[in-house]
Parts: sequence; structure tokens; C-alpha cells
Amino acid sequence: MVDASDNKQVAALRNSVSEFGLIDSLTPFGVASTLSGAESVLTGIGDDAAVVSTPSGELLLTTDAMVDGVHFRAEDNRWYGIGWKCAVSNLSDIAAMGGLPDHALVTLGVPPGVTTETYLEFYSGMNDAFTQFGGRIVGGDVVSSPVMFMNLALTGHPSLGEDGSTAWLRRDKAKSGDLVCVTGPLGGSAGGLKILSSGESNPSARILVERHFHPIPQIQPGVELVKSGVRCAMDVSDGLVGDLQKLARASHVEIIVEMASVPMPTELIFMFSTGAIDLALGGGEDYELVFTASEAIVADLLDHPDTGTRIIGRVAGDGVPGGKVTVIDSSGHEYRPSRTGWDHLNG
Amino acid sequence: MVDASDNKQVAALRNSVSEFGLIDSLTPFGVASTLSGAESVLTGIGDDAAVVSTPSGELLLTTDAMVDGVHFRAEDNRWYGIGWKCAVSNLSDIAAMGGLPDHALVTLGVPPGVTTETYLEFYSGMNDAFTQFGGRIVGGDVVSSPVMFMNLALTGHPSLGEDGSTAWLRRDKAKSGDLVCVTGPLGGSAGGLKILSSGESNPSARILVERHFHPIPQIQPGVELVKSGVRCAMDVSDGLVGDLQKLARASHVEIIVEMASVPMPTELIFMFSTGAIDLALGGGEDYELVFTASEAIVADLLDHPDTGTRIIGRVAGDGVPGGKVTVIDSSGHEYRPSRTGWDHLNG
Repeated sequence: MVDASDNKQVAALRNSVSEFGLIDSLTPFGVASTLSGAESVLTGIGDDAAVVSTPSGELLLTTDAMVDGVHFRAEDNRWYGIGWKCAVSNLSDIAAMGGLPDHALVTLGVPPGVTTETYLEFYSGMNDAFTQFGGRIVGGDVVSSPVMFMNLALTGHPSLGEDGSTAWLRRDKAKSGDLVCVTGPLGGSAGGLKILSSGESNPSARILVERHFHPIPQIQPGVELVKSGVRCAMDVSDGLVGDLQKLARASHVEIIVEMASVPMPTELIFMFSTGAIDLALGGGEDYELVFTASEAIVADLLDHPDTGTRIIGRVAGDGVPGGKVTVIDSSGHEYRPSRTGWDHLNG
Repeated sequence: MVDASDNKQVAALRNSVSEFGLIDSLTPFGVASTLSGAESVLTGIGDDAAVVSTPSGELLLTTDAMVDGVHFRAEDNRWYGIGWKCAVSNLSDIAAMGGLPDHALVTLGVPPGVTTETYLEFYSGMNDAFTQFGGRIVGGDVVSSPVMFMNLALTGHPSLGEDGSTAWLRRDKAKSGDLVCVTGPLGGSAGGLKILSSGESNPSARILVERHFHPIPQIQPGVELVKSGVRCAMDVSDGLVGDLQKLARASHVEIIVEMASVPMPTELIFMFSTGAIDLALGGGEDYELVFTASEAIVADLLDHPDTGTRIIGRVAGDGVPGGKVTVIDSSGHEYRPSRTGWDHLNG
């Protein structure tokens, strides 16, 4: 699920629709549409997934779509990988809330002439991701469409906090003094996409392409974060700086990122040398989690390396309307990442 | 949500994909994908909505997509009505299970140049349907797409049977000796669509066009049916005979429909005279419920007219592999409805 106020698609949409933004116009429908049900929505549009209260308990809901020519290229013929990524982008929204995945509905928009084998490979990739990380496909819809698209809707349930009660990871819980951390190296997926266009195929290149088509949703690390007392996180789906900007805005804080602390795959540095950092700061679809927590909680996490925690910065101040993210280099000067490092199909 | 084994889209798909059918190939992924979670799916692909068991109780899940040029025509500029229908097609899946709607996720595929006003009207229609029949939008996704599409995923929860425990309406519970009933008149939506193309605008024509763009999901009648002991139903979304064929197949029964008993809007008869019956038998998107139940239960329902129950036939035999539906005229001869009466964009 996208953050409803800022991402690449929405930015593109804004340009095409109106200066005020479609999403801003539509948000009221999502957050205050029917008074009778208002109390059932605990976290609505604007976080990675919606948290709702049902007659039988709390539930996570998220959805993500992929369109040919925008999020993938049919001619690449990577159907297993596209299916895997389609599942992972949704699983990652559940991970970003610290939840556990349950049930998926798959909608296929099917253009003329596509073979059954194409969809079997797509489903295999999706299904393998669910088998590995939890969740299963329980239904869906198949419609004719001039362009191929896939939509996945996924439910989840909460994991348990340190006191045994349910708890969520949210974007609006960052506090001044928190450390900012990620669960793993960044930029690999964006590097893989660049390599895919260039056609290079040395071992490092292949590892990065694999990262692009085979990202790992951080379900278990998300559960560990909740258990450790972390309450503020999101997934890095659109790029570290852009995603942190959303978290900073939701929490009204200023965040300082130390460029030299941002972890990157060795292969990314090998393949892109000084260009690697821009892919790590701006490249999307790595699906690591970025989170903020107190020094004490982070110290505990560093003692238990299974979350892969690396400190990349700190929350420098609160009460900042709109939020702010600043990247500084090793001499303390502000660094402005180049977006040209990241050429997502839609970027 | 489509029945995963037969509908117009899937029929079209079969032709374009392979003789074996995409859905048949994909069904195993949906019904037996991960052994660990298999017990959590109570009713999987093949009913109107999936019923799943979660750590916090039973849940209904359904999804339906609409694509420009297939399910609506952007140039008709009926955005409020398209939004209403998009919500209703999903609400109707919940009604068909006897459930109550809860939370919706909306995915928009947005082509260049569409105005914010278009989507505001679409959301208004969708939102008004949820306000009237239950359910609310809690999140979604917005993606660029060369063709406009909308996908809605909706959750629901069970209503209570006559003994106070939760119960569902399913397609596979028809028994020999049951009466077959519908909750209201059929063919109005298909008639409205035909009139829309012809451009007629007398009062009867306008009422039918209104039925096409403003169908009513049978949420409350579905709840009443469950309470009365009915356990077998589905919604009439693709056309009475075709939909009954799915029910007959799921229940392994033969169904006899008495043509003269099928209720139709007066305006349909006025506008189409002898052609009306084919629209009532084959036209989709009326979103009435069709159900089977014992004579005793139906007698009770007829005493309480709030479900709109009309008897249209009976379950004539069971143990019929593949199921069978026969329409008979008033002299007892088989009547073969003409599909040409129904020209859905995708029909």
C-alpha cells in the first residue's frame, strides 16, 4: 500500500491530474467517510497498511498493484520474479507494521494472447513467497484488460509487544533523541534494475539483478522489532530518503542521516563505485525496514543480530511541521543525493 | 469476486489463453497452496467470497475489478454510477454469503490526463454505497496505468443463523426438493445498458438506466435469509441461468426454472415486450440473490415480505455431476434463452 500523500506514482499523478493532488482530495473519503464506522479504523490511509478493528479483533489490510510498462516489462519475461515481487511488496507492508500475513486476494487484468504458462510462472513466484514468509491466496478476480495488471490485497494480524499485548509499528511515533536504523543493506534492487538495462552479467551483476527480482520482506525482523519495544517503522519501498521524509512528516521530526553509515551490498560498491551511495539513498524496492527507537532499545537489538540492525542516523528534533530529512557526509556537510542514480520505470 | 471456474471474463480468457483454462490451472494455488495454512480457509476459490479463519475469528474476503472499455466506458462520463457499481459488485459478494461488510481497499490505475473531478465523483459514488449498506474505505493504492482500472477488495463478517451461531450462504448446499427463489426482479440492469446505447429517454427507459447504474446489494435480505435457515445462495451478477448453472454444479443438482415465474420490472416488459424474458434470464448486474431452501423455510419467508422472495423453480434432483439447469415455459416445454438479448460490453 502506498503512503497516500507522497510517492513516485502519486507525484506523477499529481502532474497529470491537478496541482492539488488526487490523493489529498480523496483522503477524506478514507479517513472519515462513514461516521458510524469511524471508530473501527485505528490507522487509516497514510501508513504502510490499514489497521482496523473488526467484531472479531484487530486486522491489517494492504493492497499493491503492478502494471505492465510501469512496474515491470512483460518483454523481460521474468514472470516468476514479477510474481515474487508482487507478493513481497504486499508482505513488506505487513512487515512494516510489525504484523504477520494471513490471506491474499489476487486480481489479474489479462490482455489478449497471454499464455497460461505466463500466469503459472507468475503464480509460482507469488506462491513461493507466501509459502516462505506466510500468507496464502484464497481467492481473486480475473478480468479482461487491454494492458496486463496485477493487484494483490493482503490481510494480516498483529504480533505481540514486550508485555505480551498486541502492538504495531507506525510512522508517526518517532521521538527526538531516537536513533534511526535499517534492517539491511540498501540500493541493491535499484542497482540490479540498472544492470538489467545495461545487460552486464558478471557475478556481482547477477547478484544485484537477483536482489531486484528476489527481494526479501522483513516479516520476522518486524516481529522482533515489536517484541523489542520499537514502535516506529516503515519499509524502504520507494527509496530511503523519500521514505524517511514520509516518516519525518508523520512524526513531525527532523532526521539526520549519516551517509557513511548507510549499509550497501559489496556488489553495489564494486559495480557502481561512487555512484552506489545515490542508489542506496534513492533507490526503491529493497524492502528493508527503517525504524527509530531509543538508544537502550537499539543497544538491545545490536546484541541480538537477527534483525540485522544498523544505525544510520538520529532524530534531531521534534515539533517540525512537515518533517525534515538531512543527509550529511563524513565531514558533517549536507549531501544532496542525485535522483538520477535511480531510474525505476516510473521514477 | 468471480466464481473461479466459469464466467464471461473467464470464458473470453479461455479462448485467448488455452483450452484448459487459466483458472483451472491456477485454482490449486488458491485451494491448497501452503499446507500450514490450509485449515484456515473454510470456503476458498469458487464461492462468491472466501471465508477464512483468522486468529481473531471468521472473516469474509472478496475482490472485484473494473476496466475501462470492458466493464464501463470512460466516455459515458458516469463516474458517480461507476463508483457506485464498483462498490456494489463487491458488497453483493458479501451479501451472497449472508455476511456484513466491513473494510475496503481501493486500487486506482490512473492514465494520463484524467481530472481529479473524475475520481472525486467516482469516490462519491463508491462512498455513498458504503454509507448506505455498510463498509468503509480504509486504504488503497494509486498507480500509473495506460488504461483506467479500479480494483476493490472488501472484508466482511458473518451474520447469525436461527440458533444464534454464525452461518454462511454457500453455493454447494442445494438439496433435491428445495424451492429456488430470487429476492427481486431481474433484467433491469441489462435493459438499462441496451437503452443507454439506443439513447431513448422516456420515463421507463430512464428507470432502467437507473437500475443499471444504481443497483442495490442485497445485504439485509442476505442477513434475513441466514436468520431464516437458508444456507444456499449466490448473487445474480452474470445472469440468472449462467449463475444458477454454477450453483447447480457446486451442489451437483438439477434445477428447473419456470420461465413464467421469473420476476421482471414492469418497465422492462414495457420497453422490450417479448424480449424482456431473455434479459431477465441472461442479463447480469442486477445483484439480486438467488437461493434454494426447503418449502417450510420459503413459506416462512413469504410470510415476511422484507426479503422480496419470489419462487422461480425447484431443485429437481441431486447427484448430477456438473449440475444442470433447465428453463421451462408455461406449457412445460424447454425454453432456450437467447444470449443475444444481453450485450454486456464483455458479453
